[in-house]
Amino acid sequence: MSSYFPPPEQCSRHAIFPGVQIQTCAGEKMMVSVVDLAPHSVVEEHAHPHEQVGMLLSGKVIFFIGDEQKTLTAGDVWIIPRRVNHTATALLQPAHAFPPFIPLRQPYP
Amino acid sequence: MSSYFPPPEQCSRHAIFPGVQIQTCAGEKMMVSVVDLAPHSVVEEHAHPHEQVGMLLSGKVIFFIGDEQKTLTAGDVWIIPRRVNHTATALLQPAHAFPPFIPLRQPYP
Repeated sequence: MSSYFPPPEQCSRHAIFPGVQIQTCAGEKMMVSVVDLAPHSVVEEHAHPHEQVGMLLSGKVIFFIGDEQKTLTAGDVWIIPRRVNHTATALLQPAHAFPPFIPLRQPYP
Repeated sequence: MSSYFPPPEQCSRHAIFPGVQIQTCAGEKMMVSVVDLAPHSVVEEHAHPHEQVGMLLSGKVIFFIGDEQKTLTAGDVWIIPRRVNHTATALLQPAHAFPPFIPLRQPYP
């Protein structure tokens, strides 16, 4: 099994909220993760001790980060500092996002 | 200017190899980066002290990481450990990749 090119079966998959699936592959300190959001699904408000940067790959998603709101479309990026509350709501289309975490977050081993 | 939703003009853009453009936006410890590869462009063999995980967003790219080779298509992911040599060659189509770095790498401030 390649450690450089992890196949899907080497990654793990979790539902983190209704309609929100995350697939993760762990490196040493980073984690590749891809989030699939069903139409109208919601990533409920939360914060974590990890910085998160990401890019929306497809769809349209309303993000709230701290006191800012923006509707993101494909190619838009976001930066969530550590411990800043955030939430996201997918609009009509399914959406896919690519948010790697640092350090590895424990709920998704 | 939003620090959570960096617009393109808040990011920097560099040509790192002929036909290979990187656009970066820095967070505290992570960097969002998007790489555009022209058809047949080459990321020459190199290594760096940063772990890198990434996903190919479009196109088709031959990757060599350490002693492994794989032709990646959209949705494929890779994990490059620290200090492991790697190179990539775009095939016929233009390609786009999303490789965040940790820690921030200095050549792209």
